[in-house]
Amino acid sequence: MQTKSSGELLRLMQLAEAPDIISFGGGFPGPEIFPSEELEVCAAHIIGGRKSCLQYASTSGYAPLREKIAERASRYGAYFSAKDVMISAGSQQAIDLSARIFCDPGDLVLVETPTYIGALNAFSNYGVRYIEMPTDEEGVITDALDELLSACGRISCTYVIPDFQNPTGRRWSIARRNAFLEIMARHDIPVIEDGAYRELSFEDDPYPPLLALADASGADVVHLGSFSKIFCPGFRVGWVITKNEILSKYTSVKPDLDLSASSFGQQIIDEYLERYNLNLHISRAICAYRQKRDMAAQALRENLPETEFSLPRGGLFIWLELPQRVDATLLLEESLKRNVAFVPGTQFFASSGRNHYARINYSNISEELIAPGIVEIGEAMRRLLQGA
Amino acid sequence: MQTKSSGELLRLMQLAEAPDIISFGGGFPGPEIFPSEELEVCAAHIIGGRKSCLQYASTSGYAPLREKIAERASRYGAYFSAKDVMISAGSQQAIDLSARIFCDPGDLVLVETPTYIGALNAFSNYGVRYIEMPTDEEGVITDALDELLSACGRISCTYVIPDFQNPTGRRWSIARRNAFLEIMARHDIPVIEDGAYRELSFEDDPYPPLLALADASGADVVHLGSFSKIFCPGFRVGWVITKNEILSKYTSVKPDLDLSASSFGQQIIDEYLERYNLNLHISRAICAYRQKRDMAAQALRENLPETEFSLPRGGLFIWLELPQRVDATLLLEESLKRNVAFVPGTQFFASSGRNHYARINYSNISEELIAPGIVEIGEAMRRLLQGA
Repeated sequence: MQTKSSGELLRLMQLAEAPDIISFGGGFPGPEIFPSEELEVCAAHIIGGRKSCLQYASTSGYAPLREKIAERASRYGAYFSAKDVMISAGSQQAIDLSARIFCDPGDLVLVETPTYIGALNAFSNYGVRYIEMPTDEEGVITDALDELLSACGRISCTYVIPDFQNPTGRRWSIARRNAFLEIMARHDIPVIEDGAYRELSFEDDPYPPLLALADASGADVVHLGSFSKIFCPGFRVGWVITKNEILSKYTSVKPDLDLSASSFGQQIIDEYLERYNLNLHISRAICAYRQKRDMAAQALRENLPETEFSLPRGGLFIWLELPQRVDATLLLEESLKRNVAFVPGTQFFASSGRNHYARINYSNISEELIAPGIVEIGEAMRRLLQGA
Repeated sequence: MQTKSSGELLRLMQLAEAPDIISFGGGFPGPEIFPSEELEVCAAHIIGGRKSCLQYASTSGYAPLREKIAERASRYGAYFSAKDVMISAGSQQAIDLSARIFCDPGDLVLVETPTYIGALNAFSNYGVRYIEMPTDEEGVITDALDELLSACGRISCTYVIPDFQNPTGRRWSIARRNAFLEIMARHDIPVIEDGAYRELSFEDDPYPPLLALADASGADVVHLGSFSKIFCPGFRVGWVITKNEILSKYTSVKPDLDLSASSFGQQIIDEYLERYNLNLHISRAICAYRQKRDMAAQALRENLPETEFSLPRGGLFIWLELPQRVDATLLLEESLKRNVAFVPGTQFFASSGRNHYARINYSNISEELIAPGIVEIGEAMRRLLQGA
């Protein structure tokens, strides 16, 4: 039975939900960015005008939305059309589909250290083992990668998050992107690129995704995108985009999972894209998140002893390196006594043993709770350090 | 790679979509029953009033909706509460989850002959083999079942559709339900009951589901329900309901698949249930579908030579037994030349070789196209019979 699963993720999602908890857990966008008024207009228009938004959708997804997604992906030189796009139920479903398509039990999957817990859970359901790539501030360290891969058996695929990574918030440099793609092409390893946070860049234009850079190296890239972080997660609309013929495997397996993505969700987002300016919306989200990042960073500096972190230049997370003698899970337990939650870093590693990291989400918390919440984590940590 | 998949289902979904085709394919509800005006009111209310409808949902689903689903399921004596319910992305996702939870490669799964193609595809992805139960007008034939099961190895689970079955439209008698449950309890086989069509009963009150009858026998029943056929499929909202502790496996695997069901979909349906009368809505759907069933049945009798069928007493389908010498796939090809589609029966059988059956969907076709469409199928059939 494939039930190796995400009890931990479940517990975290549940924690993040409790009404009396100040939560830096989860990876939720901030509700204040949701464009409610505009969505009311869109909802009235599509419900009143088209029965098709209440019916089943096609397997590949709503064609006008796929066209718009392809257009947005074509901004970096490589050209995409609607036929290169399949709509998924958020990018989590696209990760599960990728694991199902690329992996057999016992297969090797190449991942960043650390990486998204939901991807580790999804791939683990298919019985894979992991090869962990070391990372630094510029992303995956490509220097010794060739050597590492030559020493391994066949690798089914690699799953990476080059932009404002979950959990570290790091963005890969362009040089690392190109070096990585060359190595993947040389070893014939398909690349699953998770781009959920890509457009949430606080200080400059988003970097080109691996998808757009792949042609030079000949690497095979399947890019997973999502409206959850840049727009709203409540409709469960993400996408798979690739030039590769592998897309037909995604569309042939997708109906077995849930027949199709939500027609309503796809059409309301498409209607929003027709009527309003998503880029303007994203720039508002960026302003809000940058402000929250700064508040969180200041409070962390002031309150958490012996703790190191880099300021993320986008995305939703700050990644903390705690003092070595502080176990992050114990810190969470102590923090929960003070009604504050975050995510211990342990779970983001494919292999165990690294217990002094923590992930702080700053997007889904009211500004006025950021400092008080972090003060409590600081108190919890001092308590642990005194006891240690 | 788990890519044994549903190219056929995909092709059918695509056929059903083509604008110039008169389609008796698919299992779509009729768009004329969608309560657009009421849903406009609900959408405006929830988008305007609650940011949570645009955010991620909890893994188990929106609690008020789960409470209402539990209440509806408690009408037959057995009592259920919200904690017995998990929301899924339609019942197809719940079928995939069931296969994932109950089955390992090589396992045996007990199914009706014929049964829902989407379930066969979902279970087949996990490498199972099937034991087929013979059926008649009263449902699964239970007489020789004990003997059949004693001759088999361990069976992981059984998947059945006791109400207005897909594809046959048949409803199991109460006696058969009880006999089946006793046998399943005796052989310790968990029962996955697909109840998607259960409430679409044209002539009398719906029968109690296996879920409600299970206590007497001690059988383990997991019931899968859906708003897709009784309301609208465009929100992708279904549910799993069971007293069994197995529900915790569903909720622990669900986040790996898509994090959660659509918040918006769950909340708009909940708002509809708060404001309006779902039973009244269902009774309107029943009127519309009964009328279409009668029109289809009359046209079939008048136009299809040597073809037998029973009048379904609910649901969305008429199941045709064609003359033995007519191959239904050839008939579909001939019909498509005349711009008419239906589903050949072959694909609804776990084992191959039964080629002279066809499924006619009457819910998702305009009344005025029913007779002209069936006239064309009749013409196609006469052409085949002349050629044969």
